[in-house]
Amino acid sequence: MSLEPTLETLFETGRRIAPYVCRTPVLTSRTFDELTGGSLFFKCENFQRAGAFKFRGACNAVLSLSEEEAAKGVVTHSSGNHGQALALASQLRGIKAYIVMPETVPEVKKAAVAGYGAEITFCESSLESRERCAARIIEKKGAILIHPYNDYRIIAGQGTAALELLEEVPDLDVLVTPVGGGGLLSGSALAAKGLMPRTEVVGVEPEGADDAFRSFQAGEILPMEAPDTIADGLLASLGDKTFPIIRKHVREIVTVSDPDIVEAMRLMWERMKIIVEASAAVPLAALLQGALKAEGKRIGVIVTGGNVDLDTLPWRGLRSRNLL
Amino acid sequence: MSLEPTLETLFETGRRIAPYVCRTPVLTSRTFDELTGGSLFFKCENFQRAGAFKFRGACNAVLSLSEEEAAKGVVTHSSGNHGQALALASQLRGIKAYIVMPETVPEVKKAAVAGYGAEITFCESSLESRERCAARIIEKKGAILIHPYNDYRIIAGQGTAALELLEEVPDLDVLVTPVGGGGLLSGSALAAKGLMPRTEVVGVEPEGADDAFRSFQAGEILPMEAPDTIADGLLASLGDKTFPIIRKHVREIVTVSDPDIVEAMRLMWERMKIIVEASAAVPLAALLQGALKAEGKRIGVIVTGGNVDLDTLPWRGLRSRNLL
Repeated sequence: MSLEPTLETLFETGRRIAPYVCRTPVLTSRTFDELTGGSLFFKCENFQRAGAFKFRGACNAVLSLSEEEAAKGVVTHSSGNHGQALALASQLRGIKAYIVMPETVPEVKKAAVAGYGAEITFCESSLESRERCAARIIEKKGAILIHPYNDYRIIAGQGTAALELLEEVPDLDVLVTPVGGGGLLSGSALAAKGLMPRTEVVGVEPEGADDAFRSFQAGEILPMEAPDTIADGLLASLGDKTFPIIRKHVREIVTVSDPDIVEAMRLMWERMKIIVEASAAVPLAALLQGALKAEGKRIGVIVTGGNVDLDTLPWRGLRSRNLL
Repeated sequence: MSLEPTLETLFETGRRIAPYVCRTPVLTSRTFDELTGGSLFFKCENFQRAGAFKFRGACNAVLSLSEEEAAKGVVTHSSGNHGQALALASQLRGIKAYIVMPETVPEVKKAAVAGYGAEITFCESSLESRERCAARIIEKKGAILIHPYNDYRIIAGQGTAALELLEEVPDLDVLVTPVGGGGLLSGSALAAKGLMPRTEVVGVEPEGADDAFRSFQAGEILPMEAPDTIADGLLASLGDKTFPIIRKHVREIVTVSDPDIVEAMRLMWERMKIIVEASAAVPLAALLQGALKAEGKRIGVIVTGGNVDLDTLPWRGLRSRNLL
């Protein structure tokens, strides 16, 4: 796919991945409506397969490969949700997936990727080491690199979450997503522009990784040096495919602090009783802190993922009681 | 309400509480279908207002009071989900709620009850002290005692969760709930008997609080001495209103161990990305361990609640980084 996805592309994508993805529910919350003064609609991609919206894009990319390409397998050096998503999508198509990750990645992530039958190659944690390692696999195996966001197949796949949300809750004033590399934000913007042009699309980014915010202001891609945020799914910088779509179709990008992200995350656990990762709480943080005004508006929120390492969470106390 | 609720009573109850309760979603899970061999439908009462199905019964009880009774207020000595539920229901009707609880109850529970505007009276933690304290409030204020389960208004209210589930997923082979005092199990049994008589109703109880299991076997209410289980919502013994309904309409009661409950709870967090309390994981524990066979069956599960103290959970690490 070498052209910017159209609404028709998004619909096609939705049909292509429909047998594999979960049509996730839209939840509402009295608490957050009261706290923000708006009507919030949470599209729960934390319930998506492999635990995040990333499965939509990965699934579309894998299903879009020719037979010949597919036979060579796919490769990525994302150890996060894209890596897991690509591993699962490849397993479902019955093709090989090579996932490059640093040895230091939490066991739970290694186990998830391995559980989907992917082949893990360990590297050092620098970006250079990851890229070199992936390049070697491409060279030796002919595997196809599936970029986590700067790829129109990925962008179209991620856009299907917004498509479903806009079909279910059509009269949204605002649609808000987190932004890291911009795959979800650009896909969501294309969906809104096509399906519901009056819906304004807004991206939210952690202050400690605010390259999208600065790039949007500057009108050119500014890279991020040494990002530092609890929202570890949002460390990436915009790409040359995501940025132009975002410039064209996104109203604004706002930022939030890590303490506000953690507070929003905690509140989502406590009040909505859903497990979300820090990155997924970024939009609500903006709504709660007023960086994005909700008063009197109908606002769609993509809840991006729920992959959290539970071993560092509540279970220590129980373990010490020998229950696990 | 002095007569055992009929299906018509349940429908009336559903209509009475509809403006106040949340019609909770039904979720499915590929993982658990694969692990059990069945098709599981999870009625997510952890998303209910005040965080548990208990709000249904409390709401019905409060709304069923005459104006004269309501003016005196209500009282309970439950510090758990029933206490919170009664506090919220009373706030919504604009009446006084007196909640008796031991001083040692976690802060989060005190805050929740106080947040709903109820008046907390502290007592010692023994049942005797709680009952004495509640009796004093009844005597002094004329407040109406709302028992957490041994009350037909409560039973009918709790039964509305099963009613909604059976309406949404009509062809269930089995409907399974945890059992403590039996309010939910008896209400669910009445709903199934009325709406879908071929659906078998099963209760699941922790081994460390197995009075319902033993009472069901013996044909008479056997009290529980010193219950000990992680499922702290299921410590109560059956009452003279819940037991006869359970004897008549429940197929069987099975038990599960605490380690199995904790494992099921953890899996629900990890795979379904929903927050459930230990008591709410008890039915899934039975399905995963084979105490209740799921193979080839369509099984409805009431996910009873999600009230967990997050301060003893993941947030300690974040706090030490000064994020909260």
